Amino acid sequence: MKIILVGASGTMGSYLTNAFGREHDIIRAGRKGADIQVDITNPASIESMYQQVGPFDALVSTAGPTYVGPWKNLNNETFRTGIEGKMMGQINLVLIGQHFINTPGSFTLITGVLTYEPQKHFANASAANAAVEGFVRAAAIELAPGLRINAVSPSVLESSPQYFPYFPGEVPTTMQALEYAFRKSLFGAHTGQVIKP
Amino acid sequence: MKIILVGASGTMGSYLTNAFGREHDIIRAGRKGADIQVDITNPASIESMYQQVGPFDALVSTAGPTYVGPWKNLNNETFRTGIEGKMMGQINLVLIGQHFINTPGSFTLITGVLTYEPQKHFANASAANAAVEGFVRAAAIELAPGLRINAVSPSVLESSPQYFPYFPGEVPTTMQALEYAFRKSLFGAHTGQVIKP
Repeated sequence: MKIILVGASGTMGSYLTNAFGREHDIIRAGRKGADIQVDITNPASIESMYQQVGPFDALVSTAGPTYVGPWKNLNNETFRTGIEGKMMGQINLVLIGQHFINTPGSFTLITGVLTYEPQKHFANASAANAAVEGFVRAAAIELAPGLRINAVSPSVLESSPQYFPYFPGEVPTTMQALEYAFRKSLFGAHTGQVIKP
Repeated sequence: MKIILVGASGTMGSYLTNAFGREHDIIRAGRKGADIQVDITNPASIESMYQQVGPFDALVSTAGPTYVGPWKNLNNETFRTGIEGKMMGQINLVLIGQHFINTPGSFTLITGVLTYEPQKHFANASAANAAVEGFVRAAAIELAPGLRINAVSPSVLESSPQYFPYFPGEVPTTMQALEYAFRKSLFGAHTGQVIKP
């Protein structure tokens, strides 16, 4: 299976590249340090990525910039980080990618526990995550037959202990559980689901 | 109680103005046909509305423009209708309004059944609704003490039968049930909740 992995050089992306790379052809995409450069906040850059890659079987995104910081600094401008990044960046990966993907094919986006379990400093991510999950449910009934779409919603990652203080009470998600959630979306028959590792 | 009602001339806004107007001071706001003109897609217009109204006790929004149409026309441009309208329009009503509202005070935003029950042609609304609901949960833990925030999530409205064909299987929400949901948010102690009429 030819899988495009956007966010390939990040914590999740590196792990998944290694996990799936043994059996599949992984095209590593990202802002830097990847096979193909892509800026998901720019639809033209997304289009260019798909044109360079050609037909593919699955798109996995672990890319999700959002604004993280004090509530008093959250405004119409800072909110755009999550809108253009984690929300529209990932939504555009699907809206544009549907014209390049093979059938059968699948899109797997990243959201996170903040959708339902807010934490201080992360309101922008709560909104962006939720938007992506709403989109995933809707896209599942709109995409052409044979195309699937899901989101994976991890908690704070076990391998990112620097974030633990911001997520009191959240049981960290192990990288293996994360891999299994993506595995379910990629190789199972689910669609329109938010998969919690 | 002094209540600003944004979207006052719409189906929901007119009903709620009538329902709450008997006991409360309702400031009707909207794009047109209201006491105060406001374009919620423009933060400066929102700021101007609050400056004209002065201190108030509750903000109710029933305003939610989104893109409705065939999936093939959904792209980075058409998606903006819901982002600037139902999503950021309502989020900015809160981010800006928190500096004008009395304590105790409350914000009540509008979402809808499409968050979890998608229908064809409404993917933009599914994403915008979900974003607002994620924001409401996060804002509830960030707003200053004494300030509350909720969303009301109706199904297709009983009084809008022209939409019934787009919502097969959805039990319509009566206007009275809608009023009670807003009543719970306005006069109860809830915060961070998505209230389903």
